[in-house]
Amino acid sequence: MKDEIIYGINPVLEALKADRQTLNKIMIVDGKEGVPFHALRQLAREKGIPIHVHARDVLNKLAGTEHHQGVLGVSAASPYSTWEDLLQKVRLAQGHAVVLILDSIEDPQNLGSLIRTAEACGVQGMILPKDRAVGITPAVVKASAGAVAHLPVVRVTNLANTLEELKKEGFWIVGADPRGDQNLYAMKFDMNVGLVIGSEGKGIRPLVLKKCDYRITIPMKGKVSSLNAAIAGAVVLFEILRQQLSGKAS
Amino acid sequence: MKDEIIYGINPVLEALKADRQTLNKIMIVDGKEGVPFHALRQLAREKGIPIHVHARDVLNKLAGTEHHQGVLGVSAASPYSTWEDLLQKVRLAQGHAVVLILDSIEDPQNLGSLIRTAEACGVQGMILPKDRAVGITPAVVKASAGAVAHLPVVRVTNLANTLEELKKEGFWIVGADPRGDQNLYAMKFDMNVGLVIGSEGKGIRPLVLKKCDYRITIPMKGKVSSLNAAIAGAVVLFEILRQQLSGKAS
Repeated sequence: MKDEIIYGINPVLEALKADRQTLNKIMIVDGKEGVPFHALRQLAREKGIPIHVHARDVLNKLAGTEHHQGVLGVSAASPYSTWEDLLQKVRLAQGHAVVLILDSIEDPQNLGSLIRTAEACGVQGMILPKDRAVGITPAVVKASAGAVAHLPVVRVTNLANTLEELKKEGFWIVGADPRGDQNLYAMKFDMNVGLVIGSEGKGIRPLVLKKCDYRITIPMKGKVSSLNAAIAGAVVLFEILRQQLSGKAS
Repeated sequence: MKDEIIYGINPVLEALKADRQTLNKIMIVDGKEGVPFHALRQLAREKGIPIHVHARDVLNKLAGTEHHQGVLGVSAASPYSTWEDLLQKVRLAQGHAVVLILDSIEDPQNLGSLIRTAEACGVQGMILPKDRAVGITPAVVKASAGAVAHLPVVRVTNLANTLEELKKEGFWIVGADPRGDQNLYAMKFDMNVGLVIGSEGKGIRPLVLKKCDYRITIPMKGKVSSLNAAIAGAVVLFEILRQQLSGKAS
């Protein structure tokens, strides 16, 4: 397996704090000092993870960018979790569980943003298709502000089959679909929710949409009336969280 | 509408310094260096105006002369609206009005995303500071999916003063602040709202935060617990819209 590289101070700090992701080593640009580097060195020492000092261009090459803030984390471990890990998280959920399913998201910024939002909303895990979708690249880890270290992400070959598996685990499948018949705010999320977000432009693929128990729309007011996939996902996830916190969805 | 072209080092520098005239981009002949070009590059960076490098004959053709000293400023019909346009929109609002104020957003993706979301939520207009913030560049127009054409965007020199002006127009100023004392979902948006979103990392500047009547926090569940500025803005804007649509905020 190829080494996984993450970069940026916060992503590396978060990976150090996370239980799941194990860093093999940390690489720092020669001469880097200051408070965040101090915290990073201390945490690495506590966790027993070696720090190697290199010239800046060594890090540039490994990260494939200059925007690494002088620090790289190298882990041989896969950034993906297993289906069993995900189910374990679901069983440990307090109250109802939420799993986010992304159908064919291609933009790394959107994927990173959705991971960050899902983590902030306390979602139990995320499912991505293996084909025709971006995976967890270093750019995605950066855009997620390190949140990917705290969220189980599972890749599957057949999303439609996976939705059937989720239904067997007691989930209701809810697709965000501009042509849906269910108003987001009229929906009561008092159940285990598998939320499907489609790619911008193409939306949810027909075979996946067929598996949805509900097709929800987000009410809007403007003239353009379409949302970026990361925004659409955030609006639905925060509505579910709002209901959970208000006791409506417990 | 045809682009307006100005040329010569001083005219472009003056246009960069002027409050009223807005350049969309600057075009420089390849290989131009020296003190005036250094000043020009720096000022353009501060103002968030992109610099494109071209061969000399491209500039000759656009300027219609060879005496352009290697630099051109291109300003389309201004993408910005006036304060009076914005107030007119506010007066025409059905029910309560919402104005989105962005304090020091530097990322074009975030600005474009916020414009798109604001338009989808039926916001009456947007206010940006002139300094230390990205303006409406072509990348922002693209990220907004064209929504910028439907939303009045006003640039101001002093955001704190502008908030005072909004208060005189009957607005309450609401800042999204992770250290705020007001839960978003406990807030009743039955008033004209001036919503302030700060830059990621730095948040709302203290002088601007001082002008806020309310400081709201978005309840979250995860370990990372911070949101991208475009996501934070979307969550609050959609909560205001939800209340408006449910009749709670009418």
